[in-house]
Amino acid sequence: MTVQAILNVKGSDVVSVLPADRVDDAVRTMMVHGIGAVLVRDEVGAVVGILSERDVVRGIAQDGPSCLAQPVSALATREVVCCRPEDGIAHVMGLMTRGRFRHLPVMRDGRLAGLVSIGDIVKHRLAQVEAEAQALREYVAAG
Amino acid sequence: MTVQAILNVKGSDVVSVLPADRVDDAVRTMMVHGIGAVLVRDEVGAVVGILSERDVVRGIAQDGPSCLAQPVSALATREVVCCRPEDGIAHVMGLMTRGRFRHLPVMRDGRLAGLVSIGDIVKHRLAQVEAEAQALREYVAAG
Repeated sequence: MTVQAILNVKGSDVVSVLPADRVDDAVRTMMVHGIGAVLVRDEVGAVVGILSERDVVRGIAQDGPSCLAQPVSALATREVVCCRPEDGIAHVMGLMTRGRFRHLPVMRDGRLAGLVSIGDIVKHRLAQVEAEAQALREYVAAG
Repeated sequence: MTVQAILNVKGSDVVSVLPADRVDDAVRTMMVHGIGAVLVRDEVGAVVGILSERDVVRGIAQDGPSCLAQPVSALATREVVCCRPEDGIAHVMGLMTRGRFRHLPVMRDGRLAGLVSIGDIVKHRLAQVEAEAQALREYVAAG
């Protein structure tokens, strides 16, 4: 099972903001789309960071509400760990567990191909478990 | 595999705040402990809600930074979905996927026995996958 299997279901759309956008605007963007992180991309589309709910909450804990008026670039995580469509789900689980993050952009040949979240991983695993259970039930019923 | 297997590794400690605590104090508590949610318990220890990073970010999106000075009870999710130690991991994955939340208190006989996060689920599954791979490698090496 690879990352591509998840992208086949959820698609390759990624919600992005600009580095100069305000944090509170990025927060509203997250809530409108029902997502926990937005990718930060510059004017030519290059990935320069990622801003998650955790980054925002950490900013509030450290600097108080004034961080909400700052540019996204002030709070975003700059060193973005990425994965590839052909990476296995276990590899991605390892990246998320060791790095303690929940969102992973997917790059194909240097271009953005999607984003997988820890919620996508669990949803995918659940579908797998349920399909296995269904196959076993059918096997038993046929036997 | 049950929730108890996760609690055996992570323990039963749960970080809690009071309903009257300020949201910004609860946010600092989350960051100090490196966690994404705190349980809201009243003076006698009863679970009356849960406050996650998402609840805080949603509050900011809706009401602006003034929500940080409000009591936790104003932003917390009141209807807390719980699980039991004997629940299977697949059951918990289903609850999290359908409810779109990442933290689940564990109740044993009406008393709080721990809290499992979506990160714990993925970490647990990763350990399982790695143990299976190691067992296969040993089987092949022995054959």
